[in-house]
Amino acid sequence: MRKMAETVYVKELDLSSLGSLSKSYITIRHPRMKKVLRIQATICMAAREYLDSLGFIELLPPIIGPVTDPGIRGAKQVTFNFYGREYKVMSSAILYKQMAMASLGKIYFFSPNIRLEPLDSAKTGRHLVEFVQIDIEQAHASYFDAMEIAEGLLTYVVKKVLKEHEEDLKDLGRELKVPRRPFKKLTHKEAVDILRSHGIEASYEHEIPWEAEKELSYMFEDPFFIYDYPRGARGFYDREDPERPGILRDFDMLYPEGYGEAVSGAEREYKVEKVIERMRATGENPAKYGWYIEMLKYGIPPSAGFGIGVERLTRYICGLKAIWEARPYPKVAGIYSP
Amino acid sequence: MRKMAETVYVKELDLSSLGSLSKSYITIRHPRMKKVLRIQATICMAAREYLDSLGFIELLPPIIGPVTDPGIRGAKQVTFNFYGREYKVMSSAILYKQMAMASLGKIYFFSPNIRLEPLDSAKTGRHLVEFVQIDIEQAHASYFDAMEIAEGLLTYVVKKVLKEHEEDLKDLGRELKVPRRPFKKLTHKEAVDILRSHGIEASYEHEIPWEAEKELSYMFEDPFFIYDYPRGARGFYDREDPERPGILRDFDMLYPEGYGEAVSGAEREYKVEKVIERMRATGENPAKYGWYIEMLKYGIPPSAGFGIGVERLTRYICGLKAIWEARPYPKVAGIYSP
Repeated sequence: MRKMAETVYVKELDLSSLGSLSKSYITIRHPRMKKVLRIQATICMAAREYLDSLGFIELLPPIIGPVTDPGIRGAKQVTFNFYGREYKVMSSAILYKQMAMASLGKIYFFSPNIRLEPLDSAKTGRHLVEFVQIDIEQAHASYFDAMEIAEGLLTYVVKKVLKEHEEDLKDLGRELKVPRRPFKKLTHKEAVDILRSHGIEASYEHEIPWEAEKELSYMFEDPFFIYDYPRGARGFYDREDPERPGILRDFDMLYPEGYGEAVSGAEREYKVEKVIERMRATGENPAKYGWYIEMLKYGIPPSAGFGIGVERLTRYICGLKAIWEARPYPKVAGIYSP
Repeated sequence: MRKMAETVYVKELDLSSLGSLSKSYITIRHPRMKKVLRIQATICMAAREYLDSLGFIELLPPIIGPVTDPGIRGAKQVTFNFYGREYKVMSSAILYKQMAMASLGKIYFFSPNIRLEPLDSAKTGRHLVEFVQIDIEQAHASYFDAMEIAEGLLTYVVKKVLKEHEEDLKDLGRELKVPRRPFKKLTHKEAVDILRSHGIEASYEHEIPWEAEKELSYMFEDPFFIYDYPRGARGFYDREDPERPGILRDFDMLYPEGYGEAVSGAEREYKVEKVIERMRATGENPAKYGWYIEMLKYGIPPSAGFGIGVERLTRYICGLKAIWEARPYPKVAGIYSP
């Protein structure tokens, strides 16, 4: 009898409320959560099928390393000491993708990332402290090639989910459509102009703040790209256009309907002098990047790639209010949960 | 010309020597390493195919959590503070498997694990500080069911690799055979008797030391199981046989030819009183396991499962001397590398 009563309790819990998080070891049994997790398994399988069909090789991801991505906007990294040397848990495996790309040419991994987000991030419904991204890198590719792969990947995944989870999506109340290709492409300047023409003002010299991104996302019915961000918007690894100083050869893909950022990608800086110059400009100390600088000195091919967060992709596909509904072990700042 | 010379340098490097590790950002381009990484991708794909075909659902793995597996024999965990609470990076996701199994019944994930191993582990050729294991759990299964799945999984993977990488295996100098089924099953007692009959003495009341395990492994041509370990050998989560106090309903699978441990698995304790008793007996403080104890009080089904390390599996399949040859980002104690 006790079991029966508690099953009802789980069913009635609002999974999108922050309060449900500390009981995630029970809410994972919610019928809604089970559907989301099954759909997420299909999403991952479909992503692998698509990338494998293009000749990408999946590698096991790095988990810790001497350095990790510094460009995580206000979040902190997990740092620890091991036999007198400092290690970090990956906040993004971006530098390690270049290392693997230089070996196998077309690579991807499902990369576990930890970002110790500030407390107020808990309320956005779109930040997680632990998440997984599919990280892709291809030698000798341009950022337009990378956009093409991202577009193809998303479309393939949506089709597969629609085919295998029609009933589940209906139960979740989600009307999902196959995105129309090609996706629209706006330059950063065009995106800012649209925002301003709608009276949405913010500081746009660097990144587009996520609240503004969300507003822009509401104006579209299909996923779309923003490209050519200004140099201040990204880390030292996004390649500056040699012909258009101050402009990066990079992009974001945004989901429509207010779901916001889907993908972040770019061509990479690969010449050691240029990387060191960019590091200095962003306040990074090149001496901290020992192996990475050594590798660049040795020489690596130019490349482009992107990362797509699996939980945000699941949130979009399932039409979920909060990102933690898309995570079997949801962690947000300030809530202690498994 | 510089590039040419360095390619030769990479080719001549002995990847199995510890010295090669600090240059892993270059040795990843070694022709031998490329073959191993391609085979590893096939191993992972085949494992997913097999488990999916049995109805298992793949979940994204936990990366950090309030607790992790304490049973990591001399290695330390990465611990950090986040808004006043202690978190750990997974050393094994065993407790979290039970949480997910209680939702979906048959689950697995590719779990990233960190174990800060002691310095002398660097020389064993079989310890990594970061590695990935395929972690499987099934509700209402017995440990014999779990052995059956492990046996089927390994056989399927070997067949797939033989089919797709005949040339690569030849280049690696590996003569790999499809294992003969059913795999032999020895009780812990029988295994110890064999070791003693060969004059290999050690303290066998708990775990079989890995050096002895290796000797035993050399005596077999096919993978084999050891089961029914004594209670002192494992953590509180391996279920004690109610009819045979002191004996755990658990097992290891060992590779032949000296490759040693492949798989560790068991039925799980699932009754809260019994888990607390076992925790106290192994010196663990139940108060530290808040969510886990709460979950057990709520109730979970009995289950069995196992973990199989992907790098050790790759080492066996490719016939590698050292485990770090099977890792794109090899980390061993005392060597600072990406």
